[in-house]
Amino acid sequence: MATRLAADFLNDWKNEVNPDLQKERDTCTFNIEEVTHILDGGRDETKKRKKLEQLFFTKYVDLFSFKKRPFLSKSETYEASVAKSVKVFELMREHNWSEADMDLISKILNYDFALSLHHTMFIPGIERLGTDEQKAKWLPLAQSYQIVGTYAQTELGHGTNLLGLETTATYDRDSDEFVLNTPRLSSMKWWPGGLGKSSTHAIILAHLVIDGEKYGMHGFMVQLRSLEDHMPMPGLKMGDIGPKLGANNVDNGFLILNKVRIPRDNMLMRNARVTRGGKFQQLSTSKANYATMVLVRVKIIGWSTDTLRQASCVAVRYSATRRQTTLKPGTPEQQVLDFQTQQFKVTPSVAAAYACSFLAQSMLTLYKRVFAEIVKGNNSNLAELHAQSAGLKAFLTDMATGMVEVCRRSCGGHGYLVSSGVAENMVGSLAMVTVEGENTVLYLQTARYLMKQISQAVSGTKTKGSTAYMNRDMSAYVCPLDHPADCRDPHKLRELYVQRAHRVVIMVARKLQLDMEAGHPQEVVFNNNMVSLVRAAKAHLHLTTIDTFLSRVDYLCETCSAPVARVLTELCTFFVLFGIDQEAGEFLEAETLGLQQMEWVRHEMLNHLAVLRPNLVGLVDAYDMHDETVASTLGQYDGNAYQHLYQSTQYEPMNQTEVHPSYYKHLRGLLKGAPQAKL
Amino acid sequence: MATRLAADFLNDWKNEVNPDLQKERDTCTFNIEEVTHILDGGRDETKKRKKLEQLFFTKYVDLFSFKKRPFLSKSETYEASVAKSVKVFELMREHNWSEADMDLISKILNYDFALSLHHTMFIPGIERLGTDEQKAKWLPLAQSYQIVGTYAQTELGHGTNLLGLETTATYDRDSDEFVLNTPRLSSMKWWPGGLGKSSTHAIILAHLVIDGEKYGMHGFMVQLRSLEDHMPMPGLKMGDIGPKLGANNVDNGFLILNKVRIPRDNMLMRNARVTRGGKFQQLSTSKANYATMVLVRVKIIGWSTDTLRQASCVAVRYSATRRQTTLKPGTPEQQVLDFQTQQFKVTPSVAAAYACSFLAQSMLTLYKRVFAEIVKGNNSNLAELHAQSAGLKAFLTDMATGMVEVCRRSCGGHGYLVSSGVAENMVGSLAMVTVEGENTVLYLQTARYLMKQISQAVSGTKTKGSTAYMNRDMSAYVCPLDHPADCRDPHKLRELYVQRAHRVVIMVARKLQLDMEAGHPQEVVFNNNMVSLVRAAKAHLHLTTIDTFLSRVDYLCETCSAPVARVLTELCTFFVLFGIDQEAGEFLEAETLGLQQMEWVRHEMLNHLAVLRPNLVGLVDAYDMHDETVASTLGQYDGNAYQHLYQSTQYEPMNQTEVHPSYYKHLRGLLKGAPQAKL
Repeated sequence: MATRLAADFLNDWKNEVNPDLQKERDTCTFNIEEVTHILDGGRDETKKRKKLEQLFFTKYVDLFSFKKRPFLSKSETYEASVAKSVKVFELMREHNWSEADMDLISKILNYDFALSLHHTMFIPGIERLGTDEQKAKWLPLAQSYQIVGTYAQTELGHGTNLLGLETTATYDRDSDEFVLNTPRLSSMKWWPGGLGKSSTHAIILAHLVIDGEKYGMHGFMVQLRSLEDHMPMPGLKMGDIGPKLGANNVDNGFLILNKVRIPRDNMLMRNARVTRGGKFQQLSTSKANYATMVLVRVKIIGWSTDTLRQASCVAVRYSATRRQTTLKPGTPEQQVLDFQTQQFKVTPSVAAAYACSFLAQSMLTLYKRVFAEIVKGNNSNLAELHAQSAGLKAFLTDMATGMVEVCRRSCGGHGYLVSSGVAENMVGSLAMVTVEGENTVLYLQTARYLMKQISQAVSGTKTKGSTAYMNRDMSAYVCPLDHPADCRDPHKLRELYVQRAHRVVIMVARKLQLDMEAGHPQEVVFNNNMVSLVRAAKAHLHLTTIDTFLSRVDYLCETCSAPVARVLTELCTFFVLFGIDQEAGEFLEAETLGLQQMEWVRHEMLNHLAVLRPNLVGLVDAYDMHDETVASTLGQYDGNAYQHLYQSTQYEPMNQTEVHPSYYKHLRGLLKGAPQAKL
Repeated sequence: MATRLAADFLNDWKNEVNPDLQKERDTCTFNIEEVTHILDGGRDETKKRKKLEQLFFTKYVDLFSFKKRPFLSKSETYEASVAKSVKVFELMREHNWSEADMDLISKILNYDFALSLHHTMFIPGIERLGTDEQKAKWLPLAQSYQIVGTYAQTELGHGTNLLGLETTATYDRDSDEFVLNTPRLSSMKWWPGGLGKSSTHAIILAHLVIDGEKYGMHGFMVQLRSLEDHMPMPGLKMGDIGPKLGANNVDNGFLILNKVRIPRDNMLMRNARVTRGGKFQQLSTSKANYATMVLVRVKIIGWSTDTLRQASCVAVRYSATRRQTTLKPGTPEQQVLDFQTQQFKVTPSVAAAYACSFLAQSMLTLYKRVFAEIVKGNNSNLAELHAQSAGLKAFLTDMATGMVEVCRRSCGGHGYLVSSGVAENMVGSLAMVTVEGENTVLYLQTARYLMKQISQAVSGTKTKGSTAYMNRDMSAYVCPLDHPADCRDPHKLRELYVQRAHRVVIMVARKLQLDMEAGHPQEVVFNNNMVSLVRAAKAHLHLTTIDTFLSRVDYLCETCSAPVARVLTELCTFFVLFGIDQEAGEFLEAETLGLQQMEWVRHEMLNHLAVLRPNLVGLVDAYDMHDETVASTLGQYDGNAYQHLYQSTQYEPMNQTEVHPSYYKHLRGLLKGAPQAKL
């Protein structure tokens, strides 16, 4: 299968770490392993991860290696991913791994599971929506993989707006069944992962209809494919929706339901039920449903973080090994990492990867705390959690996606190759900005919450949690930057973020009020201020991000070694400076600082590029991602990018023959058909 | 081949224009065709284009249709593109089309040519580098397609820095030949289009070596493949470098030259020659070489513009037909184009598409004028042309790429499907930011030019052309915005751009000077100010972009109908406002306006979203792109996005069987291997 490579070139390269990269590691000022433990959440977590890496990338390396993946067709990519899923699921059964283990394994394996929705949506869907009897029936089947399922909500014509969905489940009193139907083109299910080819079952979201009346959206368990031969069940038409920018390992599918009958018991009845005879009963308006949506968004922050880690790791390592051009004629070409413009591309992505890592951890902690409260019947923090998880999902996936693309470009032309890994990181992270809530919609949800909070604060009732700053006296603000050196204090800089968020939120709130007072209908007022509302949400979410990074670093400074404390403080300070640099207009408009101070900020931000430069490789090494997880020819630990690039070409199908078939079919005719054969 | 679709759903849809889209067209305030003629460069140009569209998309529609393309493997994609190239080349031979016709055809066919470098690089390379005798020998062969060629410069380890290239052409006096060699892994040619599988010949850039001395980079004609059977010639190893984010229709390749001998005459000797016996003679330091590089960059601005047109066309049409959510409970779902946040996504892209269109035209005109001067020996405008084309290539491809991605996201989840077209637009436009000069490197070239110009202006010598503003007395600036209504005057707003560019350039120049005076070496000073230099270049290039748009609209206002003049003025004004909104920090820091005025600008910018809303569909219809050129399921003229999406799935290879092979190989074992068969 593999083509012959020019062997002498590969002999040129010893199997050693690129000397430029080795030099970076030798001069790193801090203990890399110490930071790894911090990121993993402790030494034991690191050990556990490494044991799993050992299993997957030694014993099963043929199955789980990334190397051939860029060269597979879509159908082969899917098949390889099914094979991986099946192996992981078999190991799950064998080792009795927990869902938390599954999360860790997913991370190690780059989330490359065709059947991932079985664990992220199908099983949680049963747990959340099913009665105890239904759980007792369906969970063992799902957990032992006798059935494999997905969760089908979105339709061709309907995404964000649940109420707009058109699929119906109509109760038929005579047979005591539900009839599921997608009445027209726009109502076919479209997008659910695993729906096209894999799943045997699905939880279908549909409008419940009894006697022509609608009773809200509910989940219905529908068998999609025969358990004998995997053929579609009668009345169902399914398929794959076609190639996507990324995530082609998953068979996102469409589903047409043509009056498909299921037993009444297949309605998942935890929250509401339909009796034999067709009586509808609302049992609870559980907030647990809500909580699962929140959890998925929190998880997305984690996925996005992992992608940003990969991309920044590749960008930094490659920038340390790539030599190109020189500023001083007659000297050898420089490491591109030495150019200020290159540092300006990669340093923010490293800082953001740390910020996102800490935020992903803190959101998970917050989620667990609030969910525990909900179980005890206390919903007081749910609105905050919901607004923060929606907004942070949007803010952090936007930020990560933007930075991943900058990382990709920092690899120059080679970053355009799929084998670079960063190209895949980029298209992969792009999925995150639309799944589970389109980002603009999510910003607006946060903004609505902020408008409520600010109105509460203004009316004298104290706000709590992330909006506690709204209780401050905004007019008492004095810019804390008196000297250029103040720009090295992240706590002083933080004050600017607080003031900015506060002012932007208040200004939008005032504008809304004015427009309302002018007599415009509420929906017109809201629409005419949407762009400003999104800005307000971003200002608030930026503050949350800064705060989380800062408080985590403050905590670490108390507990970790001095060199680690120093580099993390520098990184955090840079992140805070960079944010002001990037949103200079907002900070100036909110009068958080003057022109002189802005000049100091910009100067100190550039200065921090130089300060962090010697530790960039150490900071990405500290992610301690396995080479198979980094999945990049450009960013492997050994730094031998050119060797890996060239080696990868052996897997290219077009290189399996010297002459491509298109020569015989097309090109030969052109070349030989030339009117004058002069040569 | 095609799978069966659920026919009744497609019967739902009449072959009529989506009524929402029709309504937009009915209420458009201007004559769309009039704008089409403006964009095409005249009524005759429109006619000519339509005639070619008719030929390709009627007579040869099977070959040139976009519909199946998203579903092809990489090798099939390449093969389809070779077939297209061959057909176009045959038609070129038959119709005696000119290179200008070829440019137009390329545009119509979405630049989908595996063999495009034959026309864009190989033939121009012979013309530019060859002596008259060499041209007489090679051009007829190339023009009649007896040979097909490419141009091979970049290497695995070397891109931007020509001097870093490692390939050598060593003169062998005994045989009167050159010996071409790529001595190590990093020196293999890597990236040239058409190199992997297609080309029979290549112009290879290599260091000329005679008696161990280097004599600079020169072009050498090398035969790559046999004209009999297309097998690689002895001593050569070639292949495809693997899948890329986009452009997989082209076989970007690698090439190893293992001491390959070519006749001395195969060195292209227009500018320098080597005599029999090995004497080197520099004949000219022609600027023509330079000029070709400039032309390619000017063309890239055009390519990027075409992609932005496609993406904005799709985004606007789809936003007009997609209905989702409602702001007023109980009312039907709204066209998403009615949401302010959606307008904020798509309107800038339409404005930018027009700005880029006009700039692409004006740069081509400038290029032709300056090149005509050069031919007459007048090089006085070359430095300006070079700096502007380098910088504008960077600025406009960055802008276009960013906007294309915003357009893609504005299509929600469906924009992630390859069949959406916008996904392909996005990855296609990403190639533009690194090809023919990585953008950061290009910004720095412009910045160096600006530093020279400002130092000239400061020392009292008048600057001309794009830098004429440097002669102004910057301190005499007064913000021209006295009332909110002043923000509707693009000429007043332009003054802010002038002042901003002037100030940013001067501030960087001063900083460089101070750092030099402090005794730092020049290369250190330059490196420590790189980020600021890029900012200065962008400020200058933004001004050029605004100026070109503005002067074109001013001219049109004299000649076109009042409604067209009005909408183009609104569009241009919006573009100018949007730029200030996006770079608010810079405009404030350069003290071009105060906080009050900034508020007016932001308000007027949002106001213009509403002003332009009714004409957005008309403005993208005016591009008058053929449906096959738009190449999108979401953005066809009829607006039946859901029908086209669903229809496209019939071409998905995974839909050709109901059960995927991976079921038998992997999934069945899992499902049947469950420990308890309870079901």
